Amino acid sequence: MIRRAAENEPLDEEKMAAGLKAGTLVVLGNTRRSGVVRPTAVGAGTRTKVNANFGTSRDASCLEEEREKLKVAVEVGADAVMDLSTGEDIDRMLKMVLEESPVPVGTVPIYELAAGAVSRGCSFDGIGEEEFIEVVKRHCELGVDFITVHCGLTLEGLRHVEQEGRVTGIVSRGGSFLQRWMRTNRRENPLYTYYDEILKIAGKFNVTLSLGDGLRPGATADATDRGQTSELLVLGELVDRARRAGVQAMVEGPGHVPINQIELNVRLQKELCKGAPFYVLGPLVTDVAPGYDHITAAIGGALAGAYGADFLCYVTPAEHLRLPSLEDVRTGVITVRIAAHAADIAKGLPGAAQWDLEMSRARKKLDWERMYELAIDPALARKVRGSSQPKDAKLCTMCAELCALKD
Amino acid sequence: MIRRAAENEPLDEEKMAAGLKAGTLVVLGNTRRSGVVRPTAVGAGTRTKVNANFGTSRDASCLEEEREKLKVAVEVGADAVMDLSTGEDIDRMLKMVLEESPVPVGTVPIYELAAGAVSRGCSFDGIGEEEFIEVVKRHCELGVDFITVHCGLTLEGLRHVEQEGRVTGIVSRGGSFLQRWMRTNRRENPLYTYYDEILKIAGKFNVTLSLGDGLRPGATADATDRGQTSELLVLGELVDRARRAGVQAMVEGPGHVPINQIELNVRLQKELCKGAPFYVLGPLVTDVAPGYDHITAAIGGALAGAYGADFLCYVTPAEHLRLPSLEDVRTGVITVRIAAHAADIAKGLPGAAQWDLEMSRARKKLDWERMYELAIDPALARKVRGSSQPKDAKLCTMCAELCALKD
Repeated sequence: MIRRAAENEPLDEEKMAAGLKAGTLVVLGNTRRSGVVRPTAVGAGTRTKVNANFGTSRDASCLEEEREKLKVAVEVGADAVMDLSTGEDIDRMLKMVLEESPVPVGTVPIYELAAGAVSRGCSFDGIGEEEFIEVVKRHCELGVDFITVHCGLTLEGLRHVEQEGRVTGIVSRGGSFLQRWMRTNRRENPLYTYYDEILKIAGKFNVTLSLGDGLRPGATADATDRGQTSELLVLGELVDRARRAGVQAMVEGPGHVPINQIELNVRLQKELCKGAPFYVLGPLVTDVAPGYDHITAAIGGALAGAYGADFLCYVTPAEHLRLPSLEDVRTGVITVRIAAHAADIAKGLPGAAQWDLEMSRARKKLDWERMYELAIDPALARKVRGSSQPKDAKLCTMCAELCALKD
Repeated sequence: MIRRAAENEPLDEEKMAAGLKAGTLVVLGNTRRSGVVRPTAVGAGTRTKVNANFGTSRDASCLEEEREKLKVAVEVGADAVMDLSTGEDIDRMLKMVLEESPVPVGTVPIYELAAGAVSRGCSFDGIGEEEFIEVVKRHCELGVDFITVHCGLTLEGLRHVEQEGRVTGIVSRGGSFLQRWMRTNRRENPLYTYYDEILKIAGKFNVTLSLGDGLRPGATADATDRGQTSELLVLGELVDRARRAGVQAMVEGPGHVPINQIELNVRLQKELCKGAPFYVLGPLVTDVAPGYDHITAAIGGALAGAYGADFLCYVTPAEHLRLPSLEDVRTGVITVRIAAHAADIAKGLPGAAQWDLEMSRARKKLDWERMYELAIDPALARKVRGSSQPKDAKLCTMCAELCALKD
């Protein structure tokens, strides 16, 4: 597995094994999916990876469409995908994804509990503690490669959120579901209480734990507050316990964070979680651009990556507005890949800048075919230039004869 | 003029006058266009401004279309525009723009010389030194509010570029034109030689000099090289001379710059140019994404702004491929506005984060009408959500009933 994961990395097998042992990198790949999944390294010294989410919702539940999204996401270069289905037939959907996805698949197992309760018209508080562990187990057995488990969300964290106050409260779907369960039942989060159980199950199938941030800020105004920071403290301890149990773990991060707090967030995570891989959603650097949140996230993601984040979850233009369309998925993946690559150049990742160098050489020679070939989206680059024909086929209609690169 | 420029700034008139005197900010507005142009401050303590370029090229020369681009750019919030026409009827085009644009208008006067030579089938070297000054004078007299003049491009700078070597050479249109003229005529750049003349002319009409960077890097591999840096040294001296002459000056910057060199570039400009406003094009943080360069530029622009750049020139999705379409202009302006606003939050500009706070409050209340109203692109936000109807009108199809903000 290490050998295959090292194939597309500037790291040799030995160094990868050392990182794996230290816990500064993880290799995504459930043993149940060996032969199907491409083992994928996330963490120190490896390429910054990108993830694409898809899945049905309770309002838009077409399996065929979600299957197309998986296909497109992989086609345009997602390193991993998450099936976040909460619509009808979650089970059939997940099995299909696990069968067809060549890249690691992640889930948030407790979504299934929440969706099930809503389907049956029940409130969340009737869900038994054991069900939280059962659903985790089932996903691991089915072959899911990494699971988001909000084990760091504790009553103490909720107290911080309440005491300090927040503009948007809890915006994580998993976090808000757990909060309701915890408040009504006046009990600690079962994912925290039974963390050892989860470790045992995950260890059995080499499932990587993606320790979720249920208290991530949903507004730049809430960034780096006490709730978020206290949860990160717990996540650090949970990373220690995972390492002792020989289970792979990475840590999830925000969210909505202004540019001037991104370095702080990455450095704090790296310190408190002892170099565990950092998996960020965005971060979105402003709240005012619904319809353009792939861009607000690309700004934050590129910067987070440059400071050391290892894994970027895409955000699509549909964020905050609707379930993403096929085209949104496509745009989202390419945009986050741009952010990840820009981060890799900044990180000084061996080989990363070579791609840019080759593009720049082709540009200097006005070698359009080579430029298309090297473009992150060859078809789009070709289409855009093709839509406006220059008189001289060597040039483009922007500068035409006054092209600085001519001669 | 100071009073009007201060209207939309977190700076009072007194502080603005002090910045103007110190040269750390400029107010764009040709005296010939007073009454038409909205005086616009660029520099320390003011909102990060955005500029949109348009104009005909020799391959795509429809005045009506360019007029539409001006309209759209202003409509979606460009603080300034540049008419970079090099096609037919440059003069008619510019007069139309100066008549119709409520925001400051910039030009690169020497484009007219280059385009004229090409039109007549002449080589550049026959252009007389006096023509460089004449065209600058004509643009100032016509009412142009700021002019890009590549006065810092010297034979010494060219020597640096040649001696060190570059992947893409000179990519600035003005820079490449001047280089050819200088090489063939074996003479110093007339814009440098006759800088005092230019100062006199600019001073007469309160035209702001935008000191161009003819040696800006056109590849991330060329960023912060000796050619670029040596030109910046000259630009610093030219800023001093402008200040002594009582002429407003800002400094243009790159270009293609990897994330890890952006802070350096901004800080170096601020040091060498004694706090003169910094006007950057991008910077693009990777070279491999033609078709998405509004995004590569937004990443770099947001970061440059956060570190202190004052004025961001937009880059459209058409960059490196074709003359931008109307839709490209629209996308380009909104994208660079996102970058500028994210930078203003990071700069701690008084009031900037208030917009985000109001959006986050509306989000928490699931008040969609207010969210649309506050969105950077209200029509798009409404359209995207409207294209996928939730069963419960308070929610959206992403999380539906599992919305974390529900209740």
